[in-house]
Amino acid sequence: MDLIKIKRALISVSDKTSLENLVAALQSFSCEIIATGRTRDYLLQKGYEVIDISRITGNPEAFSGRMKTLSFQIGAAILFDRERDGEEAVKLGITPIDLVVCNLYPFARAKEKGAALAELIENIDIGGPTLIRAAAKNFHYVCILSEIDDYKMFLKDLSDHKGAVSYETRFYLMRKAFNVIADYDGIIAETMDERGNDPSLRLCFEKALTLRYGENSHQQGFLFRQRGMGKSLYDLELLHGRELSYNNISDINSAVNSLKGIPGIACSIVKHNNPCGIASGINQHSVLKFAWEGDPVSAFGSVIAFNSELTLESAEFFQLNALDKSKRKFIEVITAPSFNEDALRYLQFHENLRLIRYDPSFDEMGLDYRFLANSLLMQDRDGKLYNSLEFATKERIALKSWQSLIEFGLNVVRQIKSNAICIVREVESGYMQLLGMGAGQPNRLISTRLALEKSRDNLLREFHAFRNGAFLDQECEDYCSNQLAKSILLSDAFFPFPDNVEIAAANGIKIIVQPGGSLRDKKVIKRADELGICMIFTGIRHFRH
Amino acid sequence: MDLIKIKRALISVSDKTSLENLVAALQSFSCEIIATGRTRDYLLQKGYEVIDISRITGNPEAFSGRMKTLSFQIGAAILFDRERDGEEAVKLGITPIDLVVCNLYPFARAKEKGAALAELIENIDIGGPTLIRAAAKNFHYVCILSEIDDYKMFLKDLSDHKGAVSYETRFYLMRKAFNVIADYDGIIAETMDERGNDPSLRLCFEKALTLRYGENSHQQGFLFRQRGMGKSLYDLELLHGRELSYNNISDINSAVNSLKGIPGIACSIVKHNNPCGIASGINQHSVLKFAWEGDPVSAFGSVIAFNSELTLESAEFFQLNALDKSKRKFIEVITAPSFNEDALRYLQFHENLRLIRYDPSFDEMGLDYRFLANSLLMQDRDGKLYNSLEFATKERIALKSWQSLIEFGLNVVRQIKSNAICIVREVESGYMQLLGMGAGQPNRLISTRLALEKSRDNLLREFHAFRNGAFLDQECEDYCSNQLAKSILLSDAFFPFPDNVEIAAANGIKIIVQPGGSLRDKKVIKRADELGICMIFTGIRHFRH
Repeated sequence: MDLIKIKRALISVSDKTSLENLVAALQSFSCEIIATGRTRDYLLQKGYEVIDISRITGNPEAFSGRMKTLSFQIGAAILFDRERDGEEAVKLGITPIDLVVCNLYPFARAKEKGAALAELIENIDIGGPTLIRAAAKNFHYVCILSEIDDYKMFLKDLSDHKGAVSYETRFYLMRKAFNVIADYDGIIAETMDERGNDPSLRLCFEKALTLRYGENSHQQGFLFRQRGMGKSLYDLELLHGRELSYNNISDINSAVNSLKGIPGIACSIVKHNNPCGIASGINQHSVLKFAWEGDPVSAFGSVIAFNSELTLESAEFFQLNALDKSKRKFIEVITAPSFNEDALRYLQFHENLRLIRYDPSFDEMGLDYRFLANSLLMQDRDGKLYNSLEFATKERIALKSWQSLIEFGLNVVRQIKSNAICIVREVESGYMQLLGMGAGQPNRLISTRLALEKSRDNLLREFHAFRNGAFLDQECEDYCSNQLAKSILLSDAFFPFPDNVEIAAANGIKIIVQPGGSLRDKKVIKRADELGICMIFTGIRHFRH
Repeated sequence: MDLIKIKRALISVSDKTSLENLVAALQSFSCEIIATGRTRDYLLQKGYEVIDISRITGNPEAFSGRMKTLSFQIGAAILFDRERDGEEAVKLGITPIDLVVCNLYPFARAKEKGAALAELIENIDIGGPTLIRAAAKNFHYVCILSEIDDYKMFLKDLSDHKGAVSYETRFYLMRKAFNVIADYDGIIAETMDERGNDPSLRLCFEKALTLRYGENSHQQGFLFRQRGMGKSLYDLELLHGRELSYNNISDINSAVNSLKGIPGIACSIVKHNNPCGIASGINQHSVLKFAWEGDPVSAFGSVIAFNSELTLESAEFFQLNALDKSKRKFIEVITAPSFNEDALRYLQFHENLRLIRYDPSFDEMGLDYRFLANSLLMQDRDGKLYNSLEFATKERIALKSWQSLIEFGLNVVRQIKSNAICIVREVESGYMQLLGMGAGQPNRLISTRLALEKSRDNLLREFHAFRNGAFLDQECEDYCSNQLAKSILLSDAFFPFPDNVEIAAANGIKIIVQPGGSLRDKKVIKRADELGICMIFTGIRHFRH
């Protein structure tokens, strides 16, 4: 039962890619070929010996091809148990079929091109799935090729075993076959449900990876890859360090996605799924430094993502081998599209640090799924920054010179959990920085306060650093206010009351960007006018929970 | 093509529930019955006329039942196009089959009982899916019954049309059939992948509901029900108000789930997916009042869940028809297992309020799925409150009298987004209350600060309310400290540094509950000892992102 010699094959394929190669190999091992209609014509034309399926079934191909393979003779030849049913097969004149090669009418392609119902129906294969399922069921004795991708490994196995196929290969191809059929009927079910105005959805995942644990150590955790989709979290490449944890994976997702839409070199520092530092600009090391300074306390133990090759200079920023241990910046994960060789060598000194390569085509799914209590919420992703940038107040700014900072800020604020407030500035010419953020509060005013406090903390530290000596408190205060006056405060949703504007103004903020749309917009605008604030409405809310 | 008269039916079922009734009805309309092996025996025994399938196929039932229906004759009788292929069918001696009744070998049951591979394989039905798929493909002319649940609606249609079946019914049953087969092969694929140590997963959802929009108005949103699972968000019953939004649904999920595990009458107030007020106790109105006082600012516009029938007294708490409009407590959603009639009438005054009945068997899924970038994170849910309650410090409390408050607090803190801190107290004998919480911060210290500030805000308001007249600042301060001394501060994860303990102590906190497990636990405990704090380790972290 381990090796099965392939003496007789049935071939019925709608896609003839790589078929010739396969048949040539089979015939070189003296395998007989049975084929249906167009497959037979194709092979005869190429000069191969082929037995017409009608000779086996005793029936014609009938009803415009609806009946070709469905027959007692073919079903039995694939399905009978070679040990238990051998005598019965001889009595009934059934000669075994050892290999089925079959691919199906292209239903999915017909669906994609928006075919009418009648054409869809003609593309529902009946004979093919029966052959594939029968062969898969009887995989102890029969080999099933249901995807062209598998011809290569099959041929290797066939050649290794001089015309026979191993149990492992047959088992693998059986699994493949049931997946192919389940997917095929899944798409038919989805399509028909859609035409019936009662949509259904099937999400298929494969290659489960067992994680050390889930979000917490008393929970089990697994990672799956979505079938037939592009690059994903599953394709993260661990270059150094311990295996990725559930929370690492989730944070890497947030970190990489938070860089999307930001032009130039960018860096994002994520803690508990929220970016606490993001910057963009020209030189990666400077960008990293500015991102880090967004929250140098929380950045410890964070997940950091880059959108460009990690340089040695950036790697050295973390000072992981500093003699003064207090200078070492410990982080959990660095992820980048690639790592400079020296940077990689330098960082590998630290055994608890994970270094992860991600494929730049890594993509947030087109759709956003949220599983809740035996049900699923589905939405398309939040892909639009703003409708237009409209001044709501009398006070105005030259949009042209501020637009890229506004867009940077909108990219950041929509990545932060609601209620989200962020404060951004052009820290140096060409460099954008998240100066402070407030996340996840039930009350917007608290998020605003958190963003302002974090910004002031950062500005105080900054001032102390370059005014090492003595200074007046007022000088420090002036510095903070001046910097905040050059910054923009953004809100993911409208302000319900003027209080947010008031504390922003009290801290020196001069420019506020928010969607607008509150019942009390007028009051909010009036207060902004009184306080000399320029307020811009975007028309687009960015809730994210 | 609209009505199809059922003249000839093929029946092949492994589950014979309700079969007699069906056959009796079919024969009353003079329908011929063809049946396979055991189905035939069963019907003959019950006294029905049955044509044995071998008479149609010309073949015996062979190979221990592996070959019964698979044949040119049966395939053709189901599949031929009644208009295009009529003449050809006559020439080939094919009499049409108008109805297929089939249910499949119970693969799922064999899987559940942990069958060995050989038994699993015998439970893979080949003939059945072929019959079902063929009949479904040709639904313009053929009716397919693939689930016993559908017999009733089929029989109604059959009787309404005097032995014929409508296009709508056939279309619906066709959709059902492809779903049944896709599910069947999905389970086979999953099972075989599992046996191959390469697990896969298929999640199926149905009955898409188009929501007004997604998380934001520029995103499309949908709600699906998971196939074959218990009560869910999908079964929420809107008793009053506008249709539920995407964010309502997500908040209701959080609110209802946050009540799980809390004994007695409980109420949860959710804003942006985080509970900002939770209380439990004896009288619902008091519980609501205590929950509300956890954050009376954020509670406006919230989603509120109860675990018991909403009483009139609770409904009146919101004062929705108060003449003094400032007294009206506007909220978005109230959800409860049921509503007292008078309460419902009272609340319906408010047209913007949504009133939602949920089924108490509504359940958080056994597994927790998270979709990220073409991949899926899966984990079991966080179902354990603590390993044990161990004193880490010299200072100790009488666990017996504090245990139910600790458990209340752990139930609350694990529902709040990380980093999460919450402060709870027994506000009156038998009543537990969330006094203040800090959620979703990248830095635990900020969450601790937020929880303490919110608690003090609430306590100040409380003090002002019953000491309406003049008082000394010190009296107020003493009140806050005394209340906090009787409260418990809980953390979802360990404290990395002693600073959290310090600000807790400075505010009057005397009892801290946290998982423990930091490298610096010793330092943290030492500081707690110095400050006279009782610290309890639970051994279980409750991250939630």
